[in-house]
Amino acid sequence: MSQTMPDWSVLAATCPSRTSLARIANKWTAMAVSVLGGGRTRFGDLKARLDGISGKVLTETLRDLERDGLVTRHVFAEVPPRVEYELTELGFTLHEPLLALCRWAEEHIAEVLVNRESYDAR
Amino acid sequence: MSQTMPDWSVLAATCPSRTSLARIANKWTAMAVSVLGGGRTRFGDLKARLDGISGKVLTETLRDLERDGLVTRHVFAEVPPRVEYELTELGFTLHEPLLALCRWAEEHIAEVLVNRESYDAR
Repeated sequence: MSQTMPDWSVLAATCPSRTSLARIANKWTAMAVSVLGGGRTRFGDLKARLDGISGKVLTETLRDLERDGLVTRHVFAEVPPRVEYELTELGFTLHEPLLALCRWAEEHIAEVLVNRESYDAR
Repeated sequence: MSQTMPDWSVLAATCPSRTSLARIANKWTAMAVSVLGGGRTRFGDLKARLDGISGKVLTETLRDLERDGLVTRHVFAEVPPRVEYELTELGFTLHEPLLALCRWAEEHIAEVLVNRESYDAR
């Protein structure tokens, strides 16, 4: 018996899968998921690791990841309140692919910088 | 003899590698590189495949990819002029990782939609 599944395609403008691609194909998502792959992290530590991110953007990024089911938020009733974030099982399936993008950028930036210089000199 | 290499890190706000990550961790880049993995493509065909992209955004996306050395632009002196885009060798090293993100979004969107619904109902 064949399963009937919708034909999801990110190439179709109205396909919901494109909204998921937009969420994961994002530099802050890539960095946050890479760091969270190392384990549960407090908000303040995450903010420090993602050097330069504003509190507002980090909050929005984490909320969107939580909404999509990629991240779990743990709130501890302490004073001051402690909030930790953790990858879900689904979120972990993205850890390797997104870490790969971060590594790609680091491994190829020297070559990319040479390419940019030669493009700009044309 | 050890090689001395700069310690590139996307996590450092001022590291150039972050500009490369921002370029590749992008939905339009992911879609364009996925399609271009199938071979040289005319501008108009690419625009049709990336359903919903504006000419302006596609032009900018391709120019940025060309500047970083991921895409080559071929212009043919025909009437009307024909312009084709092709992945470079460097660009091809991104094909599999970016196609993986597109496939992830398509394979997990059903689960993601359920997660969103349950988040919004809280």
